[in-house]
Amino acid sequence: MLAGVGSTFGTTFRLATWGESHGAGIGVVVDGCPPRLALDEADLQRDLDRRRPGQSRLTTQRGEADRAEILSGVFEGRTTGAPIAVLVRNDDARSSAYDHLRDLYRPSHADFTYDAKYGHRDWRGGGRSSARETIGRVAAGAIARRLLAEVAGIEVLAWVSRVHEVGSTVDVATVSLDDVEAHPTRCPDPVAAEAMAEAIEDARRDGDSLGGIVTCVARGVPAGLGAPVFDRLEADLAKGMLSLPAAKGFDVGSGFDAVSMTGLAHNDAFVPGPDGPRTATNRSGGVQGGISTGDDVAFRVAFKPTATIASAQDTVTVDNEATTLEAKGRHDPCVLPRAVPMVEAMALVVLADHWLRQRAVDVLPD
Amino acid sequence: MLAGVGSTFGTTFRLATWGESHGAGIGVVVDGCPPRLALDEADLQRDLDRRRPGQSRLTTQRGEADRAEILSGVFEGRTTGAPIAVLVRNDDARSSAYDHLRDLYRPSHADFTYDAKYGHRDWRGGGRSSARETIGRVAAGAIARRLLAEVAGIEVLAWVSRVHEVGSTVDVATVSLDDVEAHPTRCPDPVAAEAMAEAIEDARRDGDSLGGIVTCVARGVPAGLGAPVFDRLEADLAKGMLSLPAAKGFDVGSGFDAVSMTGLAHNDAFVPGPDGPRTATNRSGGVQGGISTGDDVAFRVAFKPTATIASAQDTVTVDNEATTLEAKGRHDPCVLPRAVPMVEAMALVVLADHWLRQRAVDVLPD
Amino acid sequence: MLAGVGSTFGTTFRLATWGESHGAGIGVVVDGCPPRLALDEADLQRDLDRRRPGQSRLTTQRGEADRAEILSGVFEGRTTGAPIAVLVRNDDARSSAYDHLRDLYRPSHADFTYDAKYGHRDWRGGGRSSARETIGRVAAGAIARRLLAEVAGIEVLAWVSRVHEVGSTVDVATVSLDDVEAHPTRCPDPVAAEAMAEAIEDARRDGDSLGGIVTCVARGVPAGLGAPVFDRLEADLAKGMLSLPAAKGFDVGSGFDAVSMTGLAHNDAFVPGPDGPRTATNRSGGVQGGISTGDDVAFRVAFKPTATIASAQDTVTVDNEATTLEAKGRHDPCVLPRAVPMVEAMALVVLADHWLRQRAVDVLPD
Amino acid sequence: MLAGVGSTFGTTFRLATWGESHGAGIGVVVDGCPPRLALDEADLQRDLDRRRPGQSRLTTQRGEADRAEILSGVFEGRTTGAPIAVLVRNDDARSSAYDHLRDLYRPSHADFTYDAKYGHRDWRGGGRSSARETIGRVAAGAIARRLLAEVAGIEVLAWVSRVHEVGSTVDVATVSLDDVEAHPTRCPDPVAAEAMAEAIEDARRDGDSLGGIVTCVARGVPAGLGAPVFDRLEADLAKGMLSLPAAKGFDVGSGFDAVSMTGLAHNDAFVPGPDGPRTATNRSGGVQGGISTGDDVAFRVAFKPTATIASAQDTVTVDNEATTLEAKGRHDPCVLPRAVPMVEAMALVVLADHWLRQRAVDVLPD
Repeated sequence: MLAGVGSTFGTTFRLATWGESHGAGIGVVVDGCPPRLALDEADLQRDLDRRRPGQSRLTTQRGEADRAEILSGVFEGRTTGAPIAVLVRNDDARSSAYDHLRDLYRPSHADFTYDAKYGHRDWRGGGRSSARETIGRVAAGAIARRLLAEVAGIEVLAWVSRVHEVGSTVDVATVSLDDVEAHPTRCPDPVAAEAMAEAIEDARRDGDSLGGIVTCVARGVPAGLGAPVFDRLEADLAKGMLSLPAAKGFDVGSGFDAVSMTGLAHNDAFVPGPDGPRTATNRSGGVQGGISTGDDVAFRVAFKPTATIASAQDTVTVDNEATTLEAKGRHDPCVLPRAVPMVEAMALVVLADHWLRQRAVDVLPD
Repeated sequence: MLAGVGSTFGTTFRLATWGESHGAGIGVVVDGCPPRLALDEADLQRDLDRRRPGQSRLTTQRGEADRAEILSGVFEGRTTGAPIAVLVRNDDARSSAYDHLRDLYRPSHADFTYDAKYGHRDWRGGGRSSARETIGRVAAGAIARRLLAEVAGIEVLAWVSRVHEVGSTVDVATVSLDDVEAHPTRCPDPVAAEAMAEAIEDARRDGDSLGGIVTCVARGVPAGLGAPVFDRLEADLAKGMLSLPAAKGFDVGSGFDAVSMTGLAHNDAFVPGPDGPRTATNRSGGVQGGISTGDDVAFRVAFKPTATIASAQDTVTVDNEATTLEAKGRHDPCVLPRAVPMVEAMALVVLADHWLRQRAVDVLPD
Repeated sequence: MLAGVGSTFGTTFRLATWGESHGAGIGVVVDGCPPRLALDEADLQRDLDRRRPGQSRLTTQRGEADRAEILSGVFEGRTTGAPIAVLVRNDDARSSAYDHLRDLYRPSHADFTYDAKYGHRDWRGGGRSSARETIGRVAAGAIARRLLAEVAGIEVLAWVSRVHEVGSTVDVATVSLDDVEAHPTRCPDPVAAEAMAEAIEDARRDGDSLGGIVTCVARGVPAGLGAPVFDRLEADLAKGMLSLPAAKGFDVGSGFDAVSMTGLAHNDAFVPGPDGPRTATNRSGGVQGGISTGDDVAFRVAFKPTATIASAQDTVTVDNEATTLEAKGRHDPCVLPRAVPMVEAMALVVLADHWLRQRAVDVLPD
Repeated sequence: MLAGVGSTFGTTFRLATWGESHGAGIGVVVDGCPPRLALDEADLQRDLDRRRPGQSRLTTQRGEADRAEILSGVFEGRTTGAPIAVLVRNDDARSSAYDHLRDLYRPSHADFTYDAKYGHRDWRGGGRSSARETIGRVAAGAIARRLLAEVAGIEVLAWVSRVHEVGSTVDVATVSLDDVEAHPTRCPDPVAAEAMAEAIEDARRDGDSLGGIVTCVARGVPAGLGAPVFDRLEADLAKGMLSLPAAKGFDVGSGFDAVSMTGLAHNDAFVPGPDGPRTATNRSGGVQGGISTGDDVAFRVAFKPTATIASAQDTVTVDNEATTLEAKGRHDPCVLPRAVPMVEAMALVVLADHWLRQRAVDVLPD
């Protein structure tokens, strides 16, 4: 992973996002997408529609269509190898709704830290720290999705596995996109999904908010992707996931549960497989030593409850004086349903990057 | 964070490690350390001694002194701004003890995945995937520690907070290095430490192994370090931690526990502080929107039980035939005590990098 | 300098360009510009107007206004530290004028090599290889110019010092922007400028084209910018200049003329200066060992004659069959006048990058 | 090209050098070399022997054997894909010979600029700015040479084409390594070689020094290597060459001579070739739009006369007082013969990098 000054992610397949919540628009430049990939705006829109606000009663009512325009890098329906620039104009930017945020710091938002770092911030709707920034990631993820499907047969699927106290039962091996999309919570366990939806509605009614967990699986990942040492597949995934707004934790395979197991119980025994060794279990989460085993890559991301809540909260002004924040504006009482395409996007980008990087390794015969 | 081909970490303060468990040696090149920092080999040795094998009955008995030689970048006791190369020769490389590993894949090790990726591997003691690689990181971390102490007053301290089922009670605000080093487990809760030691001894006796959790805190971090979007402080920490051998999970602040809280309970209210706003609580873990708040940066890392165990295990040969592994060689029944300086090292490097990067932001007057 | 996949330049101050000659537009994302810099679109337009076509009878008549829109990173007239995205829509994209280029390779253009590399290319007006790509660079350079003027007192000035056989006499120490802009050739020697203009007109009349040399000077560069080894100031400048369309050579200070001198004649003797040592002469071109001396940084860039000419030329079709190219479309018989702002832009970006990087070096007291 | 903090070069095939002239040693870490490449120390030594001092009467008499030890990344005679660390100990480090340099700045050396940048320098023999640093580059170049020969059939050859006023006549298409190595000047034109040797001897006798030009050709480069925009093949070559000690200029193909030609005379007409289009001439120097044409890649590098000369020179002390430098120590009166393997090394690294990068482009069918 190569970054530098903060808004770039990836090495060989790389994205650079830009834009603020209430500026002219949001965008991304994807550099490194191989040429000759069939791609059009509809490919991007499918994932953007899963991310956009106003999809269901569970999400914020900000009414953005989030229409993506591809400005470069695609010619006659196929990529050219040149950077792909994507622009989404901000339509529904009622920045006056945020006037009261000019002079105070919202708790557990980035208002104060941006001021501490930069000394000048776009306070309208969170500016650069708004989750609208993830539009660029989701667009880039959609390109990676096309690429991985086409050249590698890799697919990535995420879902909401927990909201607050409501867990779920999902068969990681068989769950499908249709299962996930069947309910606005994006939890593929229908009973749990209903309970989650209720909990979210309750929280909204109480002027409160809820967190939860997104689980993600990548299927069809061949053995050998990733890198030793710093650019381990799980390390790059961890960075990608912790770079998402509201993310507080990441674990892969057995993850934090590994702590309660012993080595004998935890180790994944190898067994002879038809195409080479495979593991009888997958507590490794599809990675050993930073490199994929050929099994499903599986990980979880913990998200905190939305920081924006309708209830009044104590806080301070930019002049360090105590005040009270009465939230206005529209917001999600639970970010989980919309976090699903974001998690997928970052996973897709990491996998596309490592898939392309592997090409420089497979050079000399065995 | 900038990497590229896998063995490099950091952008402005950057390390590149090299070396295998049973090759000529292990080393690191640190580029970007500012000039005029007082530094000698004893600074490195202090941390390397906390990482090396054979410190106590709880760790592997491999008897390496792990003496660091600084080959460049320091002149008359001070850094020059040039790359600092550090070399640790491998002394006790009984590679014959590993001959039986030439032809099989150890469960939950990187033997198979390295072969899948590279088609040629140094099978002696794990080769490049051995935890001996972390010598280079610990040496680099020691340099970062000197730098941060000198120029920023930042200190980083980690400890073992859990081994298997044994938790601990530690006051994050006051725990000291002496507390941590008081017991070979590196758990500063003396009662828990003894219980952990017993559990580890039991596991060794049973030919088994245990995992656990390292907790880490960075104190004195000024508000404003980190970056929005991809290079969030917690994202870089997550990458650094998940790049450590045997790490399976990372969370920051409230982490996975945030999932069970509501926004009202979770948000960190701002209160007027003597030098500007501060948070009444620190569920954020010292970061909001990827940027430090001025409070302690606090996170946890989950480590799986050591993959190497004395008990016999099913596995396959490199020719995909079923076989049994009878582990020989020396190993740790629990990596946690030695993981502590590794966690500190990665945190120190991330903080040094962001501290130096911030210099390019603080340019124009407020 | 950090790049990766081709369309990114710089480390701490970094630009990523995108766009094709006849696509939706051309743009750039600048990441790393410090916050609180006063900046508006007029700052960019000034330099873009010097680059745009149709400025004078000497340049192509393509009638683009090249209006820059700042899409992000600026709030209430000052930069926020977030990426600055700039968009220039393509207005006058008469791509039908290029239909005849679909099936053949223009000599000394990038048509053939793009096809060899990518197997799919946007053939309209050169697509990604068009000099319109430099719009993004010039916009980024304008931002760097503002920054360097504000924080460092550095100014960069380039001019046409030679066209084909017509040389010029210019006092590097005193020449000003007004002198350069006084004549459409951008040669500040009025007599030479007229001769150059005549030569260019003659070439146009003959269906031919001319090359030349741009000389550039950076004033006010403090001693100590640059880096040893690979990121020498002159190495980064060389990369930046050779990345410009039609550039064939670069030299710094005495450059290729150093070959004919002896060490005694070439060495720059140090003499005591009022604020520390200075050099009596500047054959070094303001850099020694990759680091600035405090003297003017001076270098030259050689540009080949424009590859597009009105005369008929032998070439081949994309199917490798001999054919004849009759150029249509509008083009510059000499790129030199419009190359001046491009050279300045790349120099400004390199200097801004190194100026910001130096901040991470100046940390510990002397 | 990706760098960051100055001592790293390359993206996919990457080297990081370290070490000072009179420190413990000099070294390099090469990351990104594909696995399974046959490699041993003799491969490195061949090129190092062409770089080392004391080869002939024309070069410095410093008697270093410059023996390379491979510390990592090679197992059982083949690369493993892990970083390859190479160490050369400094044997003949008579640093007392440099005591007089502690307190003054040598003209046209990096003594003053290092002090200006770092405020603390290793003054022994130039420290980090010594040309001994290029040992690491030459070792990395030798690895790239093996790789390119094995997988791509690319060979790189450089020679001295001019020393001061003595030019040469060399057939770029046919000149061989044997021709180059036939004379200690590394000029393959025997008559010119003798004249160059005489001129160098004369300069030494006069306490003076000479510069010159190295010409370099890469043969067997397939069409399609390089990248558009910033990472043009010629831009990366320019950066690599201008990063060499004493380099003052670079040009590719027709280079600075293009200035005197018209477009009609300069353009390389395409003609049908047996395997696709080829150019009838090669004024492009094997690159168009930053991407290789399939023809020989040809470029020149100008080197200044050695800054170290035996004659007395005016200079200043570190306290800014006028003094006279009487050079002691051993030095080359002309760096050109030893610059040849350095030029080759940087060209080899650039080509290996772009060859590996191209693998990520060749992914989807035409």
